[in-house]
Amino acid sequence: MDPRIVVEHPEWVHDVVDWQRPLAGDDDRMRLAVRLARENVRRGTGGPFGALIVERDTGALVAVGVNSVVRLHNCTLHGEMVAIMMAQQRLASYTLAAPGMPAHELVTSCEPCAMCLGATLWSGVKRVLCGAARDDATRLNFEEGPVFPQSYQYLEERGIQIRRGVLREDARAVLEEYRARQGPIYNA
Amino acid sequence: MDPRIVVEHPEWVHDVVDWQRPLAGDDDRMRLAVRLARENVRRGTGGPFGALIVERDTGALVAVGVNSVVRLHNCTLHGEMVAIMMAQQRLASYTLAAPGMPAHELVTSCEPCAMCLGATLWSGVKRVLCGAARDDATRLNFEEGPVFPQSYQYLEERGIQIRRGVLREDARAVLEEYRARQGPIYNA
Repeated sequence: MDPRIVVEHPEWVHDVVDWQRPLAGDDDRMRLAVRLARENVRRGTGGPFGALIVERDTGALVAVGVNSVVRLHNCTLHGEMVAIMMAQQRLASYTLAAPGMPAHELVTSCEPCAMCLGATLWSGVKRVLCGAARDDATRLNFEEGPVFPQSYQYLEERGIQIRRGVLREDARAVLEEYRARQGPIYNA
Repeated sequence: MDPRIVVEHPEWVHDVVDWQRPLAGDDDRMRLAVRLARENVRRGTGGPFGALIVERDTGALVAVGVNSVVRLHNCTLHGEMVAIMMAQQRLASYTLAAPGMPAHELVTSCEPCAMCLGATLWSGVKRVLCGAARDDATRLNFEEGPVFPQSYQYLEERGIQIRRGVLREDARAVLEEYRARQGPIYNA
């Protein structure tokens, strides 16, 4: 009666991601998140959103995620959620801030929705980089849910550093490409 | 390099849940959510939270979820998230509000955290029943994240009916039992 949930990346992710190369700067990190978002659109495997988890100080890549809502019939599988789950599975820890771990960072091609912002807090990351803005997504009729200015403040008060607007134009271009292809808006 | 995420219930869930019996009223529905929460504590498989998805009008049980954060090394696996994922997998749909579907309802033993409230919006449920209150959970040092009065209002404005405080004392008793057993607070 009970199904078993399996979350896996589309095959192409393994062709696109170089797991060995550290991502030194913010732009370098965001470039990969945007690339993942764009490939997800072009290969028809999901919505225009990509994310990754890196070690904050070294840029070592820990995990990636692409929006998998439609592909896997699962409204919770935004890019950020997949990246967080994959990183925690890899480290066999429900937090990326366990004793002895380096600081981790979430890099996302678009500002997180309410669900992903909550998960960011539980994930244990110490820093968040965002590409496109909430308004860029809502212009496509993607909903972001109950996120308010005090939601970001809530995370910052708990020691999470947030930088928005990294390569925003590149990230926004992927949203526009998705719109041009008339991709499904699964949470309009 | 990339792990594969697998989400499954602990074995005991199948002994506790009667999949055939419709859950007619709100109390009947909440009783099962609280039972799931309590069994999760007593059997040592996770935090003191249980949830289910039913068809709103018939009470037919679609899916259940218990908190699986520690067991599966995954901060996103709150009871509500597991129930939503399982229901969508079962119906092979990323929304529980697809054309032709009956209205669905989320029943949760405790008011949802920020992540779960966001997921509730994306899930397609039309009604939410909550047992214990946010304050009951935070008294145990469980965090709820950036949830504000306007967060609930946001969902209500989008047509989701929310009823809080159903069997609150029963639900709260499970939280107290967890505290007495000194269960881990994984998102303090």
